Amino acid sequence: MAREIVECVPNFSEGRRKEVVDAISEAIRSVPGTKLLDVEMDANHNRAVVTFIGDRKAVAEAAFRGAQAAVQRIDLNVHRGEHPRIGALDVCPFVPVAGVSMADCVALATDVGQRIARELKVPVYLYEEAATRPERRALPDLRKGEFEGLREEIKTNPERAPDFGPRELHPTAGATVVGARYPLIAFNVNLGTQDVDIAKKIAAAVRESSGGLKFVRAKGFALKDRGIVQVSMNMLNFKGTPLFRAYELIKSEAERYGVHIVGSEIVGLVPLEAVADTVDFYLKLERFDVTQILETRLWE
Amino acid sequence: MAREIVECVPNFSEGRRKEVVDAISEAIRSVPGTKLLDVEMDANHNRAVVTFIGDRKAVAEAAFRGAQAAVQRIDLNVHRGEHPRIGALDVCPFVPVAGVSMADCVALATDVGQRIARELKVPVYLYEEAATRPERRALPDLRKGEFEGLREEIKTNPERAPDFGPRELHPTAGATVVGARYPLIAFNVNLGTQDVDIAKKIAAAVRESSGGLKFVRAKGFALKDRGIVQVSMNMLNFKGTPLFRAYELIKSEAERYGVHIVGSEIVGLVPLEAVADTVDFYLKLERFDVTQILETRLWE
Repeated sequence: MAREIVECVPNFSEGRRKEVVDAISEAIRSVPGTKLLDVEMDANHNRAVVTFIGDRKAVAEAAFRGAQAAVQRIDLNVHRGEHPRIGALDVCPFVPVAGVSMADCVALATDVGQRIARELKVPVYLYEEAATRPERRALPDLRKGEFEGLREEIKTNPERAPDFGPRELHPTAGATVVGARYPLIAFNVNLGTQDVDIAKKIAAAVRESSGGLKFVRAKGFALKDRGIVQVSMNMLNFKGTPLFRAYELIKSEAERYGVHIVGSEIVGLVPLEAVADTVDFYLKLERFDVTQILETRLWE
Repeated sequence: MAREIVECVPNFSEGRRKEVVDAISEAIRSVPGTKLLDVEMDANHNRAVVTFIGDRKAVAEAAFRGAQAAVQRIDLNVHRGEHPRIGALDVCPFVPVAGVSMADCVALATDVGQRIARELKVPVYLYEEAATRPERRALPDLRKGEFEGLREEIKTNPERAPDFGPRELHPTAGATVVGARYPLIAFNVNLGTQDVDIAKKIAAAVRESSGGLKFVRAKGFALKDRGIVQVSMNMLNFKGTPLFRAYELIKSEAERYGVHIVGSEIVGLVPLEAVADTVDFYLKLERFDVTQILETRLWE
């Protein structure tokens, strides 16, 4: 695809003061070539999640400006909320959507992380695909002790030393986690039974944690108002485990119980490539390219 | 979808003089909001096919400017080629791709047809979905006798009177056919057998002309170098008969002969909606919208 698209989903530790979240969004939006897709504020979590896209250069600049706006306005010493956090810009993942590789997004995370450390004096940890060691891949491990606990640990515990920046927290903005991950697709498959145990068993068969498909998280639920059950999935890497593979595995497992798939849903956004890959599989396409989709010609 | 896309595929009676086709393409491209996708010149047919897209307003203006450039430069009195034709701009279909209805494209064809007749003094016939009577739907009927034969007929035969403009041919540019049609998708399905008769029988079962699926043209071929056969289809209206329905019918008919589908191909461009409809069918999606595809957010 001619047009490159990186998605960036920074999480900020502010979910109550709208003027602060507006200022951060404005800083991001002010960079030409970015497109703000969504801003969600959660008062209980006291946290905001901003989603925007653009080419690498624009996204790098916008992520930095968002970080800067947050560091200037958010004081972790007075921040209270249900969600664990270590910094004003708490976490900032870069996601390859089209025309860029994961390696590109790792490079982007590294560059932006270094700039945040250097110019804003905030210690930065790299996580997920950008992690510098295996034990730093998972976000919960990096957030252990939160802002309050990390204050001493970052100085004394060599395992908590940041990848970039000072070995002490920014006095008000704490620390920041920057990284790269694959696009996440929320994909739910509905089964024509009222027996929630069947959904739970199939979820266990499908998800990675209990021996199923890699890159799949799954839970079984009852949809009581409809009298059916649902296998609710997070697809963490649609190139590694595509939607159709999870769907076909659920179909096959459901047959074991004489149950059929009655519907499915993709919640929220999905990259075009995940859609094209699905068509490719079911129609056995021999050489399909997303640039054959007429609308993509508008991006060139 | 927020962004509206009309495709326009004018055919001009010039396939040898590159400077003429360039001038026409330039006239089309000069309208802001249009995107030229393809220009094909055929010397034997002495004909050029230009493909461009844009919103309704831009496409209407560009189609007119293309017509004007052709009328100024092409003389049918000296035009020779294998392809039947009645005018400099021989035929001009408008195709709804996204965010516009067929009714919108019929209105567009009517407006542009009237303008060509009024400002360029070229008689205009409306065809296909824009036709004013059933016997004017099919292009070959409108081209009967070609430029040379139509010269007298247009004056004397009430059935050949144009929908707009003078009841005589433009002295050099002849007449023009303007209309609206659905996007055409070239879709081929390959079967794991060397027996071309099976492909021919399945093609006959699938195509409208012999009692199969409406809006489908199909032929059976041997792909000799690969030792397989192919059902080659033109899908004339993918909303009326979607790709997956033709595919599933071929699969079912092939089983009758113990033959399997080994692959398929979409040749050239396909509207995003046809791709999304396919995913919708195979994953039994309950409420999928193309605006959930991340890339579409770039068009807003």
